[in-house]
Parts: sequence; structure tokens; C-alpha cells
Amino acid sequence: MRPQIALFGDSITEQSFRSGGWGAALADTYTRKADIVNRGYSGYNTRWALFLLHQLFPFDSTKPPVAATIFFGANDAALLGRTSERQHVPIEEYKENLRKVVHHLKECSPTMLVVLITPPPVDEVGRRDYAQSVYGEKAMELPERTNEVTGLYAKQCVELAKEMGLCSIDLWSKMQETGGWQKKFLSDGLHLTPEGNAVVHEEVVKVFNQLWLSAAEMPDDFPSHSEIDGKNPEKAFQQLCI
Amino acid sequence: MRPQIALFGDSITEQSFRSGGWGAALADTYTRKADIVNRGYSGYNTRWALFLLHQLFPFDSTKPPVAATIFFGANDAALLGRTSERQHVPIEEYKENLRKVVHHLKECSPTMLVVLITPPPVDEVGRRDYAQSVYGEKAMELPERTNEVTGLYAKQCVELAKEMGLCSIDLWSKMQETGGWQKKFLSDGLHLTPEGNAVVHEEVVKVFNQLWLSAAEMPDDFPSHSEIDGKNPEKAFQQLCI
Repeated sequence: MRPQIALFGDSITEQSFRSGGWGAALADTYTRKADIVNRGYSGYNTRWALFLLHQLFPFDSTKPPVAATIFFGANDAALLGRTSERQHVPIEEYKENLRKVVHHLKECSPTMLVVLITPPPVDEVGRRDYAQSVYGEKAMELPERTNEVTGLYAKQCVELAKEMGLCSIDLWSKMQETGGWQKKFLSDGLHLTPEGNAVVHEEVVKVFNQLWLSAAEMPDDFPSHSEIDGKNPEKAFQQLCI
Repeated sequence: MRPQIALFGDSITEQSFRSGGWGAALADTYTRKADIVNRGYSGYNTRWALFLLHQLFPFDSTKPPVAATIFFGANDAALLGRTSERQHVPIEEYKENLRKVVHHLKECSPTMLVVLITPPPVDEVGRRDYAQSVYGEKAMELPERTNEVTGLYAKQCVELAKEMGLCSIDLWSKMQETGGWQKKFLSDGLHLTPEGNAVVHEEVVKVFNQLWLSAAEMPDDFPSHSEIDGKNPEKAFQQLCI
């Protein structure tokens, strides 16, 4: 009965139901309006994401999601020749993979509202500090991701959205508008703090509102308890069937 | 593909995806294992909950939840002749309504794991302070709920679970084992603080583990990224189909 909104992405999506997470906040925003389902896969890039599409979003689904966020790129933008190179995807392929994901979702349901989200910015100092805290002296000196390269991927994501007539959230640019974004929004130079999660939540809600998927305008799935007559409760529920 | 766990209850369930909420924490515990769906209805008692059953849990569902929590009673236990009397349900009827909910869910799916949760304790001082902060001098002096009466409802809930061979969580007793539970676990004498939410989360996880629905023993719905060969990713995904 309730529509479903799918969050498809990497670890920043997978972790979005942790305390202060943007997925949980979205679920709270859409309480009694829509179900938010987490389809985040830690460490995944867009190349690997393609393998999941038919199982996650089957064409013969009788109830596909009404909306989806696609939030990849943080791993695609890992640099060649560095510790995370296994996750690297060339920038042109990243864009084409995203296009394939969108095509798949639209084939699944032509009316699905698809929102592209760019990777967040990278704080190289924060990444290095994090690596040293985990690996000690063995940590590589050279960063496995740079903010500059991630920014190029973010640009491709935004461009693709324009080409395909979709809404996008340029998180890479948005976060950098705030002074001290490195520590304010990022916990380890890459993943989000509660404040960083709040930015994503706010931006996703803003875009969904623009797309007429505003929680405030969606009906609750059953009457408010204040509308139920204590002596004649049937009345409130019968009206649902008219 | 992923199994679904439904949380059916009143406002304490509806609000469970707020920051620090037990529903969101459960969704995080079951990341990539199960979807947690919030079926909380603020202000509802068991009498009104019965009207929702056929729409929320239709008998002809091809994919009913694998598990459900039933968490009502805080409103049923509202006292007659006080401000919330509209929500009152006599204690015998409360128990029979819960039984009907369980019967419905089991008819929906005989293998569904059903867990009954008692209402939390009531802090009458906290309720009075809250009422005064909202209504000022107009607030009624007499409490609309008492801890003692809510305890009787909790007892019926636990007894019903025993009669029906179900697991239950006696939240009313559990919370009162901790000194200062009134302010530690309750934000307004009735609803939960983040610490109170943590108790519910912990107890639900404990019961699901006993029922062999342990997140740790459930497979992730796709390979971990560390198992994916960067040069031959197909391999990791082909294995899924064997």
C-alpha cells in the first residue's frame, strides 16, 4: 500500500541508518507516507553495481519504487596505483554506468523519480590521518583519493543528470560552500558525520519536494488518532473505502 | 529478495526512526540482511489497530514479513475519566485484541516470528510536568495514565505470549530494573529517550537472536566488496547463481 523509495549506493548509503544517518532521517520524514529501503553496498563502484540491478529492481516487479537515489562515485574515483585502485573505474565508464543504472530503473518503471547524488568532497588530510590510525607506519603516504579527481567525477554525474533531464544533488560542491567542511561533514575524510548526513537529508528532501514527492502533501496511510471517534471508530475507517 | 521485518505499534513505534530510535538501529543491525518496515500509528490502541490488519498484512501477500513486533498497550492503558479516556481499552479486551492480531499474522504466514512487547513504564511526574509545559494551568492534576495500571496491561501481554507460545519483551519490568529509569529512559514520562530506545533495540535483537533470526548468521544479500576480483568481477556475482 505504501510507496517505496529506494536508496541505491555505496557505503555512504549502507551506513545511512546509523545514528544521525540520512536514510533514517528520510524514513522519519516519510513516516506513514513511504517506506525507505536501503540498497547501499559498502565499497561498491558503478561497475559492480550493474551486477545487482536485475535482482534489486526486477522488470517484472508489481510494485517498483516510486523514487530512487543513485549515490555512487566515491569508490569509482579511487586512484590507480594507490591502495584502493581495485575500486577505480575510469571516469567515462563511471558516467556510462550511471546512465545504465538510470535506464534500468526507468525501464523498471517509467514514472520512477530518479535523483543522482555526486560523491561528497574528499578531505585528503582526514584520509591520511585515518589511514595512519588504522595501519600505523604502514599507511601509504600518497592519498588513495583526491578531492580534485573526485570533483571531476561529481561533474560528470551532474552533467549526466542534465543530459537525461533528471534532478541531481551536487554534494561535492554543496559541502565545500561551508567553512571547515573537512571536519564538520566528514568523519574520516570520506564518510559522513551526523552534520554531513543532515546535509544529504536536507538536499534529498528539497529535491523530492520539487518533484512533487513532498511528505507534507502525501496522505498518512490511515486516519490520525485524533480523527477517530472513541465510541464509533468504524466510521473513521469506513471512510477510507469510499 | 530481502526478508522484511514489520514493526507494528503505536507512537513508540512510529517515532522509532527519529535520531537514536530503535527502529533505525534495528535497520542498521540488519543492513543488507532484512528490510525493517515501520507500521507505527501514533495514538492507536489495539481496538483501532484491528481495523488496519487486512490492509497492512493481506492474506494473499506473496511476501509477508518473516517477523513482526507487536507493541501496543500504552494507549489502551489510558484511564477512564481522564484526558486520554478516548484511547482507553478495557484490559480483557486489550488481551483479546492482541490475540486477534497474532492470529491474523499467523494466518498471513504460519512461520512468521511474532514478538510481543509490553508498554514501557509510566513516569507520572514526568507526564504531569509535560502536560503543564503544554497546557499550563489548564493541565489536569490527575494523571491520564498510571504506572500501576500500565503494569497490569504489561502483565496481560506477557501472559498472552506464554499462552500462545510466543516470545515477549517485558519492557515495563525491564526498564524499572535501572535506577532513575523515569528520566533516563522516558522523555515525557511515556515516550522514549535515546537511552530508552537503546533498551528496546537491545531486547529486540536479543529475542530475534534466540529465534534464529540473528543478523550475524544471515548472509549479506551480495558479496562483500573485498571478495570482488577487480579484474574479474563477474566471478563473485556468478557464484550467487550456482
